[in-house]
Amino acid sequence: MTSELRLLSEHACFGGLQCFFEHDAESTGTPMRFGVYLPPQAAKGPCPVVFYLAGLTCTEETFAIKAGAQREAARLGLILVSPDTSPRGTGLEGADAAWDFGHGAGFYLDATVAPWASHFRMERYITQELHALVTTCLPVLPGAVGLMGHSMGGHGALTLALRHPGQYRSVSALAPIVAPSQVPWGRKAFAGYLGPDEAAWAAHDACALIAAGGRLPPLLVDQGLADKFLAEQLQPERLETVCREVGQDLTLRRHSAYDHGYYFVASFIAEHLQHHARLLAPGKA
Amino acid sequence: MTSELRLLSEHACFGGLQCFFEHDAESTGTPMRFGVYLPPQAAKGPCPVVFYLAGLTCTEETFAIKAGAQREAARLGLILVSPDTSPRGTGLEGADAAWDFGHGAGFYLDATVAPWASHFRMERYITQELHALVTTCLPVLPGAVGLMGHSMGGHGALTLALRHPGQYRSVSALAPIVAPSQVPWGRKAFAGYLGPDEAAWAAHDACALIAAGGRLPPLLVDQGLADKFLAEQLQPERLETVCREVGQDLTLRRHSAYDHGYYFVASFIAEHLQHHARLLAPGKA
Repeated sequence: MTSELRLLSEHACFGGLQCFFEHDAESTGTPMRFGVYLPPQAAKGPCPVVFYLAGLTCTEETFAIKAGAQREAARLGLILVSPDTSPRGTGLEGADAAWDFGHGAGFYLDATVAPWASHFRMERYITQELHALVTTCLPVLPGAVGLMGHSMGGHGALTLALRHPGQYRSVSALAPIVAPSQVPWGRKAFAGYLGPDEAAWAAHDACALIAAGGRLPPLLVDQGLADKFLAEQLQPERLETVCREVGQDLTLRRHSAYDHGYYFVASFIAEHLQHHARLLAPGKA
Repeated sequence: MTSELRLLSEHACFGGLQCFFEHDAESTGTPMRFGVYLPPQAAKGPCPVVFYLAGLTCTEETFAIKAGAQREAARLGLILVSPDTSPRGTGLEGADAAWDFGHGAGFYLDATVAPWASHFRMERYITQELHALVTTCLPVLPGAVGLMGHSMGGHGALTLALRHPGQYRSVSALAPIVAPSQVPWGRKAFAGYLGPDEAAWAAHDACALIAAGGRLPPLLVDQGLADKFLAEQLQPERLETVCREVGQDLTLRRHSAYDHGYYFVASFIAEHLQHHARLLAPGKA
């Protein structure tokens, strides 16, 4: 089941190790890369793990380089895993044609439409293959798995946690796409990966999943109010409304002046990791 | 004296602002870019400033994106300024031929040899033109100016502080080139920018300057022991020896496992900023 892991690089960082791995993924039929931060505590015993799903155009390196998360992860004793945002080098026609579809834009679902269905299976990759690899090969505290993401990766965190109840004990998002069926980024991706029948889209739309009875652990979401994608693509009020209607626990924080980028992510990452640590290792954070 | 400042971008970050500016620099005869982090305290009154000089191949963005320094700067109330590492777009033949000479490799000196002398005047740029711009246009506490750098920028921090006594009240370096006259990176750069007469090189060599009587404020230097440039290019023992011989205050910390990159810089940047804050704003840090 677990293909061979190839260590691409490792770097001492805040007393722990920032590593990058590659493996031949069965889910996508391609080599896949991911980053792992091992805090100093991981050398002594098992630790909780938080998966971070990145946004459009990002790679497995973006979070590790730009978010400055290792400092707080080292303090809290959290393992961080940062997958790539899609399969790469698929050779599929059109996979490099746009920045918001194809390579770098996997949308954390399993495509059902040709030719994408042959490689773009990021849901299976994240929730099964990489999950199994991480929880068997790394010193992960059994069951202590959190999931978070930014933008497209915030969509991924919400929908994967909703679609796999019980798998993630803590969930959070930064500037997530909360209702992809209703906004241009999501409509383009869903039409491409899932086909034109919108009935199939609701199963990958966080707001629709919550409206249909899906539930998450107490949810933390941060959103910058100077985010240029706020009104057209993100629309956090949709999440706020549906959570209020069904009684889903949501802490949605709006921050004036913050934009969509990693200076925003870096500013709030420590509080997100604290949120995960509280739920994954109660009494320690 | 101060040319027009063009704001390229600004991003809310840890309650302050990460900005990038461009201006037409007289020193280099080119447009020059630099980053500025304004901590939240700068909105209320003047703050100390720390200049950070980056290493080979870096730009004005590298430190802002990769070092994760804004968090601690926001806590301490420090303004951070990160210049580019050379003039760009000079059109000089050979300026793009190597990663360790020309564009991205200005070595923080004023070249005296044609054709480099026409544009590669980074010492004048950093210590005069940008210094004046920053201290007049930003809310800088008078005299509270620190200087630090990484690798080639560590060489820059040490030599510029030694050559401009009194201008920098606090100095530190991460994995600096301490004796450029003696190592391949420095010998190549000095031969190119200053000519083959090695007598002229000592004036830009930190160890030689200290041996000749130059003095610095209490100096903090960090060095990773898994740094692949340690033995050939960095040789911190040369700095240790000359400082001991002449009584220069030096705290040199060697860290096992750390390499030369920004995961190392990020791991120790907070302690460097604390060192600067102690000297620049005594009683506050």
